[in-house]
Amino acid sequence: MKKSLYLKILVPVDGSSYSNKALAHACELAKTQKAILLLIYVVDKSVPFLNFIDRREYLSVLRNYGKKIMKKASDTTRLRGVTSKQIIKEGNVSKEIIKTVKSERCNLIIVGNKGLGAAGRFLLGSTSTKLAADAPCSVLIVK
Amino acid sequence: MKKSLYLKILVPVDGSSYSNKALAHACELAKTQKAILLLIYVVDKSVPFLNFIDRREYLSVLRNYGKKIMKKASDTTRLRGVTSKQIIKEGNVSKEIIKTVKSERCNLIIVGNKGLGAAGRFLLGSTSTKLAADAPCSVLIVK
Repeated sequence: MKKSLYLKILVPVDGSSYSNKALAHACELAKTQKAILLLIYVVDKSVPFLNFIDRREYLSVLRNYGKKIMKKASDTTRLRGVTSKQIIKEGNVSKEIIKTVKSERCNLIIVGNKGLGAAGRFLLGSTSTKLAADAPCSVLIVK
Repeated sequence: MKKSLYLKILVPVDGSSYSNKALAHACELAKTQKAILLLIYVVDKSVPFLNFIDRREYLSVLRNYGKKIMKKASDTTRLRGVTSKQIIKEGNVSKEIIKTVKSERCNLIIVGNKGLGAAGRFLLGSTSTKLAADAPCSVLIVK
């Protein structure tokens, strides 16, 4: 096969074990497809206000968390010999992912079975199902 | 990469354009992964009784339809240079697919975005979302 099935694969990362598993899977697939990975973390601004921490501080915590897990994800891809690009967005998680798929012309999204927002107290439920339904490109759900 | 990510890929076929697109995608992926494809068609016995045709005749129509599209799917894989095995089951579509994934130890299911039952008057709605949630292995939804 001369033409790769996937050229740009988007991998949402959130630091959860599901997301880490999806990233490892994405690295292996990227190697066989000669694809590059776009790692995306979305600072979720759609969460309701939490009493114990003001919104500004809360978002600041998420931004720092995002930078930290993005660095870790980037290190993982480098160690596995895969080229990656890091993208950090702010807004609604699935909407920002879909906007990025369109603007970056991705061929595939690889997501964990659960996760996306799952990180201790930031647990917000899965957006994988929503992505599978709404994404304009193919979606691989890794288990 | 020496080890293939996928050894056995299950592809439910139903003759719909969505299923055909998923099959073409599966062939390309199988070639890069040195995987074999298991093509499955499930005679859906969970449909309610239809007045205009008795159950026995209805199931007979579905069985013949299944054989026909299975032959077509098998021809497609052969033309694309991919090894495939054909499986015809009867029962509830998603349950039979998941049982087969387990018994055949498949690593991946590739499904169309819609389809599975979609064939003219046999349109029964999509089981892709159900598969994505319940399958024990990874699921690729092709768009």
